[in-house]
Amino acid sequence: MFLYEKKLQYPVRVSKCDPRMAKYLMEQYGGADGELAAALRYMNQRYSLPDKVVGLLTDVTMEEFSHLEMIAAMILKLTKDATPQQMREAGLGDHYANHGSALFYQNAAGVPWQASYIQAKCDPIADLYEDIAAEEKARATYQWLIDMTDDVDLQDSLKFLREREIVHSMRFREAVEMLKEDQAAQKFF
Amino acid sequence: MFLYEKKLQYPVRVSKCDPRMAKYLMEQYGGADGELAAALRYMNQRYSLPDKVVGLLTDVTMEEFSHLEMIAAMILKLTKDATPQQMREAGLGDHYANHGSALFYQNAAGVPWQASYIQAKCDPIADLYEDIAAEEKARATYQWLIDMTDDVDLQDSLKFLREREIVHSMRFREAVEMLKEDQAAQKFF
Amino acid sequence: MFLYEKKLQYPVRVSKCDPRMAKYLMEQYGGADGELAAALRYMNQRYSLPDKVVGLLTDVTMEEFSHLEMIAAMILKLTKDATPQQMREAGLGDHYANHGSALFYQNAAGVPWQASYIQAKCDPIADLYEDIAAEEKARATYQWLIDMTDDVDLQDSLKFLREREIVHSMRFREAVEMLKEDQAAQKFF
Amino acid sequence: MFLYEKKLQYPVRVSKCDPRMAKYLMEQYGGADGELAAALRYMNQRYSLPDKVVGLLTDVTMEEFSHLEMIAAMILKLTKDATPQQMREAGLGDHYANHGSALFYQNAAGVPWQASYIQAKCDPIADLYEDIAAEEKARATYQWLIDMTDDVDLQDSLKFLREREIVHSMRFREAVEMLKEDQAAQKFF
Amino acid sequence: MFLYEKKLQYPVRVSKCDPRMAKYLMEQYGGADGELAAALRYMNQRYSLPDKVVGLLTDVTMEEFSHLEMIAAMILKLTKDATPQQMREAGLGDHYANHGSALFYQNAAGVPWQASYIQAKCDPIADLYEDIAAEEKARATYQWLIDMTDDVDLQDSLKFLREREIVHSMRFREAVEMLKEDQAAQKFF
Amino acid sequence: MFLYEKKLQYPVRVSKCDPRMAKYLMEQYGGADGELAAALRYMNQRYSLPDKVVGLLTDVTMEEFSHLEMIAAMILKLTKDATPQQMREAGLGDHYANHGSALFYQNAAGVPWQASYIQAKCDPIADLYEDIAAEEKARATYQWLIDMTDDVDLQDSLKFLREREIVHSMRFREAVEMLKEDQAAQKFF
Repeated sequence: MFLYEKKLQYPVRVSKCDPRMAKYLMEQYGGADGELAAALRYMNQRYSLPDKVVGLLTDVTMEEFSHLEMIAAMILKLTKDATPQQMREAGLGDHYANHGSALFYQNAAGVPWQASYIQAKCDPIADLYEDIAAEEKARATYQWLIDMTDDVDLQDSLKFLREREIVHSMRFREAVEMLKEDQAAQKFF
Repeated sequence: MFLYEKKLQYPVRVSKCDPRMAKYLMEQYGGADGELAAALRYMNQRYSLPDKVVGLLTDVTMEEFSHLEMIAAMILKLTKDATPQQMREAGLGDHYANHGSALFYQNAAGVPWQASYIQAKCDPIADLYEDIAAEEKARATYQWLIDMTDDVDLQDSLKFLREREIVHSMRFREAVEMLKEDQAAQKFF
Repeated sequence: MFLYEKKLQYPVRVSKCDPRMAKYLMEQYGGADGELAAALRYMNQRYSLPDKVVGLLTDVTMEEFSHLEMIAAMILKLTKDATPQQMREAGLGDHYANHGSALFYQNAAGVPWQASYIQAKCDPIADLYEDIAAEEKARATYQWLIDMTDDVDLQDSLKFLREREIVHSMRFREAVEMLKEDQAAQKFF
Repeated sequence: MFLYEKKLQYPVRVSKCDPRMAKYLMEQYGGADGELAAALRYMNQRYSLPDKVVGLLTDVTMEEFSHLEMIAAMILKLTKDATPQQMREAGLGDHYANHGSALFYQNAAGVPWQASYIQAKCDPIADLYEDIAAEEKARATYQWLIDMTDDVDLQDSLKFLREREIVHSMRFREAVEMLKEDQAAQKFF
Repeated sequence: MFLYEKKLQYPVRVSKCDPRMAKYLMEQYGGADGELAAALRYMNQRYSLPDKVVGLLTDVTMEEFSHLEMIAAMILKLTKDATPQQMREAGLGDHYANHGSALFYQNAAGVPWQASYIQAKCDPIADLYEDIAAEEKARATYQWLIDMTDDVDLQDSLKFLREREIVHSMRFREAVEMLKEDQAAQKFF
Repeated sequence: MFLYEKKLQYPVRVSKCDPRMAKYLMEQYGGADGELAAALRYMNQRYSLPDKVVGLLTDVTMEEFSHLEMIAAMILKLTKDATPQQMREAGLGDHYANHGSALFYQNAAGVPWQASYIQAKCDPIADLYEDIAAEEKARATYQWLIDMTDDVDLQDSLKFLREREIVHSMRFREAVEMLKEDQAAQKFF
């Protein structure tokens, strides 16, 4: 069962209205390596990976959903004082025609999220490398986003999220090594 | 923040191994009107709909994620004693080539889930009708699934889920009427 | 059989060259809730819904195709005097690289139309709620488009189309209530 | 404006219940080279091709929509007496889980129709070759379908449609030669 | 077996930094009628078309892959001196958020490449018309790109590529006529 | 420049006609983790990764294209003696309706290949983990395919390919460690 608590994992602040940056942040809301992709990938893998790593997958799933909320909060803060004219100049007119000011699971270019971005192979080593790659790709995306803004408050939030991806990547690497050792001990796989 | 409790919302039972039925149930795991689609639709709309309905959307989001777990549990129970030969005869060989025995967010025909199945318009009336339609379509899917099995235990679980969709549909209809009245009272929209 | 008469359902006028607005209007040509989506949804549902509503579905199908023509006419009028430079500044360079000045079934962001936007469940109540939702979502899209222009001639055409969606929504609501009554009278479904 | 007359272009008959063949026919309802693809391709190209060929495109558009109706009629006739068990054995269980007995714009494998199957380049020669290729590909699809059935009534309807594609292909070839001559006469393009 | 030689088929030059033009050129890298689409279409058709045309298909496959390299080289030259600010003003911020400065198989609007753009029907005439249409559509795309730049060095490279498409189109037309004659001689098909 | 030599990298043999197995092998022809996906991923990353790893990426690209040829050869051998009836019973009727006996870039379930399966982030560590994950996922797919056949000749070819994926995975792991050391030596990234 899933439960919800009305609280952000980490406070989110932005220092200025910046709809263009909001558009770029959509990459982490509904893009290939964004938080939705991460949460759904791990949530699904829990059903086939060994018990030993299910706890890790569940923890990271819940954290990624919480990150998705933080991204949503950033986008809303970056756009809430924007005029329609500013939205259009930021390239958000396409989005507005379809979704008004609502969020949607699509990347910065407006391509809807699709499950083809993620994978589950029922092979613990393959799936954990998929997860490590996912975290490294999310880290890279946060880097490109940090590069594109000079808003130090926003950078602070993005750096927090980037660090979390690095931590997850390390935890998945530990998990993959642990499983490899188990396989070696069992002399089979 | 999202929290997870290791418990199914409603107990799931099946009375026989039936991989073909497992394949059909994937429609509710990763199909157009399935539980993932429902959960993600409402989770996203919470950021733009009026405060008055956000609680309802959050509640239904969490319940739909819990239903997704129930569907996963059914699929696993229906296939856990199946031989590879039985899986192939049930038409699951395509799935096995790609995902082994892992679950994946795709429909019964193997088409990956995509956000194009759902919508957010930032218009409370339009979004709530989207939600009513979603619940009615999920109800219809459960009906087709119930029609395709004679396993009374599985039917019991599916009927429980079908009833929940009907309840959600009614709650969304009440919400849409409430918002219409508010709009009428305010003499504008 | 389908027949064509070379006449617009309602005259279309625009008061200025505005390629940026033309880009946004593509949402109603090839977007998720656009006129193509509407026409194809109803045209397809005619084969499985009760005879009682087939006439309504056929009428609305034909009208939505006619609306598609009106949208095409608006886009062509808004762009016909635009220089290549104006087209690129309006964000239409991507479109030009692929399609030149031709129209295409894609939304304002350039995502091609896909049948995943629409649905047919073979359940009259579910399908009619799908249709009501579709009309409400199209109404919302017209609202966002009207908000983005100050061209009163264009607004007039868009308001006409928005009103038609409201009329269709009401007709589908009447149809759903009629079918519910029939079901109640038959004490089954 | 589009008008509808309740009449099939050519009578459709089938001599037996054959849900497997119905599944294959869906390729021509919602597949890459099917009748929907054809109708929508030509309907859209009318807005950018020279006046000289617009009449041809309009005529073929209307005829392809009428063919789509014929395909729908064949699928319904081939399945109307099938038991749920027969439907599942024919591989239509996936379809039933999602759409019940309703038709949908998807190919024989269940992949939803998408506008990426078709194209419009705003270049008369390129667009007409696209159209010739489309007709030849539709012809090939009809051939594969005719090969897969021994129902002579169904074969008769499919052969009629295959012949129409050949006629369309020839008319598009004449059109492309006519336009090439015009270009040569004008010494430019 | 495939072999690679580190050499461009034709030298590529650009006379100025122009990230906006780089964005448009992505249409030929990962778009519907781009060089990837061409190479993959012919590479795949080699397995089912008559021996007589396999050599032609192989040659053109290899050349299209080489053209893909030329397009890549152009995009890299057009952007290598661009500041992040210039990239964003050129509309490449969406691309940067997802891929940094890396290339990707997506069109100018950011839609990922998909095999639905191409086709193989196992019918030599249909497949060769598909190929002729492909070359004509690629020619049209090059024309639209040439129209959008005043960089004579870039135009020179693009004109070279446009000419190659015309040559391929003629070779495919010769092939289709040759096969038709063979069929006529055999009095069947 | 790309060159082609008419020779398979490793001889391919099958001991019986088995169209069902041919269908499953399509997963490695046009599926998410198949040989096309691999070749295109590495071919594209060569333009943005450090010179040090470009040679490795080019080598593996060429080898993966050669593997794609081997998969094609297997599919053709497994189906060349199959009757139309056997093809339909193997679940290939859907494929036949669309493509006749031609190959196509789609997975075992018939979903067309899409670039969303792969990624390029312009971050060497992220991209190389993407590549390691890709090889591990391809290895898993080969395992599932080996599990589904008792044809020892086919198993031999599949085992050869599985081993090559393991070798590639190790080479990509060495590359990622080498780049990490370089970064550590430079005390920055």
